[in-house]
Amino acid sequence: MKEYSVIGKPIPQVDSIVKVTGRLKYITDIVLPGMFHGKILRSPYAHARIIKIDTSKAERLPGVITVVTSRDFPMVKSGRALGLEDEYPFGFDKVRHCGEEVAAVAAIDEATAEEALDLIKVEYEEFPAVFEIEEAMKPGAPLVHDHAKNNIGYEIHHSVGDVDQGFKKADYIREDRFETPMATAAAPGPRCAVADYDPVNGTLTLYTDANIIYSALPVFARIIGISEKKLRVIKPAVACAFGAKGRMNEVGIYAAFLSLKCGRPVRIERTREEEFANIRSVEPLIAYFKTGVKKDGTLVAMHCRHLSNSGAYLDFSPWDARQNVGVFDMLFRCPNVKFDGYVVYTNTIPSAALRGLTNRALNFGQNSHLDMLARDLGMDVVDFYLKNAHQKGDVTASKYKLDSCGLIECIQEVAKTGAWEEKRGKLPARRGIGFAAAGHTCGFRAYGSDLSTVLVEVDDLGCVKVISGRSDFGQGPSTMIVMCVAEELGLSVEDITINELIDTQFVPWECGNYGSRGTVQQGNAAIAAGQDVKRQLFEVVAEKLGTTPDQLEAKDKRIFIKDSPDKGVSFLWAVKDYRDSGRPMPLIGRGYYEPPTEDMDTKTGEGNVSIAYGFGAQVAEVEVDTETGKVAVLRVTSANDCGKALNPLILNSESEGGISMGLGTALFEEISYDEKGRVLETSFSDYRLPSVWQQPEVKTIWVETVDPHGPYGAKGITEVVSLPTAAAIANAIYDAIGVRIRKLPMLPWKILDALREEKSKIKA
Amino acid sequence: MKEYSVIGKPIPQVDSIVKVTGRLKYITDIVLPGMFHGKILRSPYAHARIIKIDTSKAERLPGVITVVTSRDFPMVKSGRALGLEDEYPFGFDKVRHCGEEVAAVAAIDEATAEEALDLIKVEYEEFPAVFEIEEAMKPGAPLVHDHAKNNIGYEIHHSVGDVDQGFKKADYIREDRFETPMATAAAPGPRCAVADYDPVNGTLTLYTDANIIYSALPVFARIIGISEKKLRVIKPAVACAFGAKGRMNEVGIYAAFLSLKCGRPVRIERTREEEFANIRSVEPLIAYFKTGVKKDGTLVAMHCRHLSNSGAYLDFSPWDARQNVGVFDMLFRCPNVKFDGYVVYTNTIPSAALRGLTNRALNFGQNSHLDMLARDLGMDVVDFYLKNAHQKGDVTASKYKLDSCGLIECIQEVAKTGAWEEKRGKLPARRGIGFAAAGHTCGFRAYGSDLSTVLVEVDDLGCVKVISGRSDFGQGPSTMIVMCVAEELGLSVEDITINELIDTQFVPWECGNYGSRGTVQQGNAAIAAGQDVKRQLFEVVAEKLGTTPDQLEAKDKRIFIKDSPDKGVSFLWAVKDYRDSGRPMPLIGRGYYEPPTEDMDTKTGEGNVSIAYGFGAQVAEVEVDTETGKVAVLRVTSANDCGKALNPLILNSESEGGISMGLGTALFEEISYDEKGRVLETSFSDYRLPSVWQQPEVKTIWVETVDPHGPYGAKGITEVVSLPTAAAIANAIYDAIGVRIRKLPMLPWKILDALREEKSKIKA
Repeated sequence: MKEYSVIGKPIPQVDSIVKVTGRLKYITDIVLPGMFHGKILRSPYAHARIIKIDTSKAERLPGVITVVTSRDFPMVKSGRALGLEDEYPFGFDKVRHCGEEVAAVAAIDEATAEEALDLIKVEYEEFPAVFEIEEAMKPGAPLVHDHAKNNIGYEIHHSVGDVDQGFKKADYIREDRFETPMATAAAPGPRCAVADYDPVNGTLTLYTDANIIYSALPVFARIIGISEKKLRVIKPAVACAFGAKGRMNEVGIYAAFLSLKCGRPVRIERTREEEFANIRSVEPLIAYFKTGVKKDGTLVAMHCRHLSNSGAYLDFSPWDARQNVGVFDMLFRCPNVKFDGYVVYTNTIPSAALRGLTNRALNFGQNSHLDMLARDLGMDVVDFYLKNAHQKGDVTASKYKLDSCGLIECIQEVAKTGAWEEKRGKLPARRGIGFAAAGHTCGFRAYGSDLSTVLVEVDDLGCVKVISGRSDFGQGPSTMIVMCVAEELGLSVEDITINELIDTQFVPWECGNYGSRGTVQQGNAAIAAGQDVKRQLFEVVAEKLGTTPDQLEAKDKRIFIKDSPDKGVSFLWAVKDYRDSGRPMPLIGRGYYEPPTEDMDTKTGEGNVSIAYGFGAQVAEVEVDTETGKVAVLRVTSANDCGKALNPLILNSESEGGISMGLGTALFEEISYDEKGRVLETSFSDYRLPSVWQQPEVKTIWVETVDPHGPYGAKGITEVVSLPTAAAIANAIYDAIGVRIRKLPMLPWKILDALREEKSKIKA
Repeated sequence: MKEYSVIGKPIPQVDSIVKVTGRLKYITDIVLPGMFHGKILRSPYAHARIIKIDTSKAERLPGVITVVTSRDFPMVKSGRALGLEDEYPFGFDKVRHCGEEVAAVAAIDEATAEEALDLIKVEYEEFPAVFEIEEAMKPGAPLVHDHAKNNIGYEIHHSVGDVDQGFKKADYIREDRFETPMATAAAPGPRCAVADYDPVNGTLTLYTDANIIYSALPVFARIIGISEKKLRVIKPAVACAFGAKGRMNEVGIYAAFLSLKCGRPVRIERTREEEFANIRSVEPLIAYFKTGVKKDGTLVAMHCRHLSNSGAYLDFSPWDARQNVGVFDMLFRCPNVKFDGYVVYTNTIPSAALRGLTNRALNFGQNSHLDMLARDLGMDVVDFYLKNAHQKGDVTASKYKLDSCGLIECIQEVAKTGAWEEKRGKLPARRGIGFAAAGHTCGFRAYGSDLSTVLVEVDDLGCVKVISGRSDFGQGPSTMIVMCVAEELGLSVEDITINELIDTQFVPWECGNYGSRGTVQQGNAAIAAGQDVKRQLFEVVAEKLGTTPDQLEAKDKRIFIKDSPDKGVSFLWAVKDYRDSGRPMPLIGRGYYEPPTEDMDTKTGEGNVSIAYGFGAQVAEVEVDTETGKVAVLRVTSANDCGKALNPLILNSESEGGISMGLGTALFEEISYDEKGRVLETSFSDYRLPSVWQQPEVKTIWVETVDPHGPYGAKGITEVVSLPTAAAIANAIYDAIGVRIRKLPMLPWKILDALREEKSKIKA
């Protein structure tokens, strides 16, 4: 393998110090001169018609600046999936979930705005509501939207081969049903926005915590009704996102409306209660799996019936279902595959993205299902996976082109390091070991684009400044970009700075950070930008040294002739020579990377949507307390195909964080509703997040497949590392105590119930 | 003349709306998380030895974070003029003026910091002090610095021809002495800085209101003792500067020291009292003029003895004296010229820059002197000036190359429009008319450079974004730069945005705004950047239209074939075609302008230091109330050689502001001292600024000489428009009542005294 100077080294994140010393300026720290404060009035009903809104009393409250409702602005239908727009910025004919926005107030301070909310009189006519997926699909259930029969808002069907024929040829068929709940990101920093409309110039500046800025501009602009060219977006630091802060969301929209109406800056910060009760989060899923195999374990047919709960509006759900088409058939070679996805409206909060999307839910079900299938066959599940696993060069049923694929190595490595052979069936009572695997895209064409741009500016002092519109909420793209530029220029990370603030006034186009896209897209752009700088410097240095640019190398802060390393100049002298030659300053390198991928076929979910695909496998070891039903996860071993480990320090922390998240999915996390559709978890004391006390010992192995498209061969792993944990834990619990929990999270009472049922079965 | 689309139009400033609606974020609005507040302890003595500083009581005050004095950091000598460093960040052996900094405190709030100042015990040994220039030069006067004999800190001597021989050949010689006081900028926004030191990364971020950032980095870095590469400087909006906010000043230095010591952000904002009593301001000047002429008015010899009061440290004074070498001989052809400059230490506040520097003081003296000389000869002063005036192609005695020069046109135009002929000697009693002229550089090589850089970025939406490190404190460079880019790209000003924040993290090298340099240097860089964008777009469009780039033109938001204007594409389509051709995005245009000028010979002040030179002439009309001594300036006519009037709206407001400033110099403004060297004017109610009630009717004429180096022929006029007003008013007062005030400002009591003296002379 090539020798690198910076790449592959465990380099601390470039912004870690400013973060831990509290000097980073977060979105919530933004204070503008003359700024007002906004609050949002939300529906107390899950399903109701709005008869009348009277804001007059609120408007007369001293300190209140303005009130906006649906009557103040043209209400433009919006939605994440084109052609599927089904919601307005305010619920104005009907409200379809508790917490739906009805009005917003701007006042001189938050307390006054809060007080004004109570003075807004809204007359509602309450309707019957429906909250559960399969309830909502029944004939006669309350309709959330008149147009959606049986509350089915969106369908996607994918079929390869002939699945019915496949099942006929199978020696053994197994079917299972799994269910996962709504869960939330619970980011430490609540969502916040400050909108500043300038009524004379007609420009709006939005301070936001959104990860996706450029590609979300058109939708945001359309909703608030001003040209995207008149929008300036500024993103200060964000206190974690976990995938849930993608686009410019409702606080930005209402801050914008309020600022548009009063012509002054308006700030809205969600309370923690709003964060829990109104954040759009990962959707509930019911998944039916049916798999047919030959006696020897060869897969012949796979079917998934995928029922997801979009909540009151489609929002992210169609994307979730589409991506699960590809995730479902990503791991295995199988001639006959069918996926039937139904996105179902209910009167709950609409769904949005969360790290790993509903992929983690699907993965839990599929890996649990296959664990049982392998047991039914009397086969070691690891052997079963190895037998059917996709390999490099394969094209999956959903048309993903696997130009690199380390799935088999991941399975082998995790089995070895996780001591699968040694421990399986040989652990003491109430201890168990479980296995699961996963795959995930590394970015995809989301808004017709998967583009990243990086600029490198070298100034007259020789300072190297990187400018990028990435969104770094802890996962490390800033460091990764700086490392790539440093590697290309032969510098060290300390020689390079990167912009903190993301501001569309000077940051070039960037799709943002989601879908594990950062590493590949932004890394390639960073390399290209570094090479563009290098090309310009090499021209000058080659002239000076009487050689040609292709004979030169940049390393150890020098540019020199490869074959005579003593003949060279320092990087700083090269910059000086460049400048003195009269070439344009600042020296600018541009890196632009748009992968040659395909748009997804939205009817089937097919298409080579990502330039690279990551894989991983995990082994979990648990101990179950059969008296209390409590599960302790002792250790998790995780092996992941990261293409090339750019920075083991960041990779390992991503792995540990991902496993913590998977642990939450498995054992703790759930957003639940009362009978009126009101969220029950409204604070960190209600919502069960795993803490450091529950975190298992983690051992991570990195499998380096050197992807031909990735930067230095690297692939994004942020999501894939979090996917198999829940299933590995579920399988380990089964291994420990012989019970199978089919509905997450696996809370102690469910374990106890299952044990009791198991016992009664044995007695009967 | 060439037809322009944008240039020459009266376009409102691009930031005027954000300013007048209060939405601009000024330096004083900066709030950082965890920020402390600093205050500065200043010497109560004008001259004393510091025996002991005891900070222990202050350090124990609850809420105090840290105290810094000279013992906390290595004290590095600094100064504006290389080789002349004579001061330390803190007065630590001695203090040499009242208000000199002795210690600084950071506390949780300003009140606590203020309280702590009282708890710092400093033992002083007081020395005799000296405040007046000619007192300080006498043998036996207290020495401010031991090394400076007769308190002369710096000398500059310039001689061309043989001035003694010249005077021998003269038919008539006149000598005069004039004196001008210290004056201050009195900007609405007080100086303020926030320093944020990161102790782990070793980086310091300084939020400052300084106009000069990049070229001041090395000095600032040396003082605070960290590498300039570890410095990031951010400049929010600045509430006026008037030339007095050049470099990163003491509040920045103490904020940095405090932040370095406590590892947290520290903010220091000057109180208004500090602004008056401690701001470094334009220096007092005593100038002796001796001029010899032939009978017909032809100049044969000019001599100036220039005694400037540097205050306790040299700071800006050597620069001031150097520039006055060139200003002294800038207007007139004269074979024998001599300038002897002495910069004298006293125990007053050191000097710094103010719009027009001490040039305005010199101009007042020289124009008053020549007015009297012309009267002595029985010659119309206008004819005298016209006879001797420099013309295009001349090289001045100080080696300024006048590649354009509209001095004669300015004199003729101002005489015509100001009704000089009609009014001179024909006005009613106590009314008078006066004339004066001026010249000034348009930028100069100040730190070995006179460089400006402008970037233009065109993004995937076709948005055109300009990035520049200019300092816009009201004089309009932002608008000027945008206009130049718009003109080049055939767009309108509204199609273009320009960065608000100046941040070294993304703004390219820029010398800053001083010395009337903005228009020429930044304008040329903007044009170059626009042309660089155009070049790249023309390549694509030419290919598409089957023509060559040189056949194309950009106008009215289109790019088309000059000879077949219907054959073309819109600007947006050209950007799209550029992008679709696979060329690198964002499209970036770079403009870099370093004028081919000379470094000044610091021994003589000679050298072609500026790429262009501006000229102006003014006629003032006054009425004097001989009972009260009050002078009303009725109207001022001003004609200025601006090369090309890029934007008449901004030019006229610069002219009106300049005249207001000249009016202040003439009649009102003065910083004075009590017998202990303490400043007497400490608020806007003590310091006499002209208000709108005193502002005369102003009529400005723009003479367009189309300078070969200026952008579209333009030159900078910010300083030259303010120079001749004081002399024109003084000459008008003489014309009105026959008395001559030789020491500014011309306060009512001085007028009355002079009238009394004149009367007693007549009686005697």
